[in-house]
Amino acid sequence: MATAEDSGKTTLESGHAPAASAPPVSLFSADLVLRLLLFAASLSALVMLLTAKQTAIVSVVLTPPFRLAPVAAQFKDSPALIYLLVALCVTCLYSLLSAACSLKSISMSSVCSAKTLFLLILLDVFYAAIMASATGTAGAVAWVGLKGNSHTRWNKICNLYDKFCRHVGASTFLAIVNSLILILLAVLNAYSLYGRSR
Amino acid sequence: MATAEDSGKTTLESGHAPAASAPPVSLFSADLVLRLLLFAASLSALVMLLTAKQTAIVSVVLTPPFRLAPVAAQFKDSPALIYLLVALCVTCLYSLLSAACSLKSISMSSVCSAKTLFLLILLDVFYAAIMASATGTAGAVAWVGLKGNSHTRWNKICNLYDKFCRHVGASTFLAIVNSLILILLAVLNAYSLYGRSR
Repeated sequence: MATAEDSGKTTLESGHAPAASAPPVSLFSADLVLRLLLFAASLSALVMLLTAKQTAIVSVVLTPPFRLAPVAAQFKDSPALIYLLVALCVTCLYSLLSAACSLKSISMSSVCSAKTLFLLILLDVFYAAIMASATGTAGAVAWVGLKGNSHTRWNKICNLYDKFCRHVGASTFLAIVNSLILILLAVLNAYSLYGRSR
Repeated sequence: MATAEDSGKTTLESGHAPAASAPPVSLFSADLVLRLLLFAASLSALVMLLTAKQTAIVSVVLTPPFRLAPVAAQFKDSPALIYLLVALCVTCLYSLLSAACSLKSISMSSVCSAKTLFLLILLDVFYAAIMASATGTAGAVAWVGLKGNSHTRWNKICNLYDKFCRHVGASTFLAIVNSLILILLAVLNAYSLYGRSR
């Protein structure tokens, strides 16, 4: 996907524009590897989130006489986790499409046009922001579930729904990884564009 | 700050590289205006968040006999809102520094180097991700405060702390605006870099 010269690193340090260009195999490969990693991480996060379901026996009445009943916890109960699910779905799809595009460039040994690089930066930045905000929402809700908030009397639920919380936590962690990969992809493509600039 | 040719738009559409370069006054100005807007929005969001404090008379015991007492709600009570505050502080500082840098470029009528543009993209993307995640955390907590969650028995608090919630809501909305401005800045600088590429 990337097209900066092999001398790109030296160019960045010296601040001068590069000369003639040979396809930069390392940047091509790095782009593809990152996009495949993005796919793997978003798919794993999706699976963790979709399997986040646990039933526990809890009191359904707060005051005595307490009445115990099985109550299920699932990701659908929280708008924040639904937003994370949607963000993971679109990112997963985007990673597949962009990886296919990257693979095609490598197999055809063709050099990405500057226009393609610009559009990829635009999309990478957009998806990075989506994924970062979804990580934030899921993380905030997971934190309240884990620690509770005595000021607002929001009780922690992870002492009851431990498996559910582990799944949500793993999914949130993978969402952070996704955000970092997308930022890295945007910077990588910006670097490729920089390598081509005068 | 930006340095694409005036013919940049035509170039983008046709996919060809631009020819000679004159300082692109419109992109210079757009960059500065966006950075000043970013500063104004993050400062307003900071003020809204710091003044988010309200005391209400609530029952401090959940079961009868209920005992009423004044209880204060403030942003310090929520880790999510503290994260938003930190994110707003660093973004506010960054917007000032980068606006000064942008203004210097305009006053000296100098053209930003490709290296500067690349570094600005890197920083803009980084801050966009920080701000998007902070918007997510604050938004998630504000949503629970507004609507509650019957599944987890997290009661809504905005019926009691209406002024506090309005301040947090306004701050979160301005954080979304900040995220969008930072994304726009990253894309604008990527476009400038694209305008210079072969």
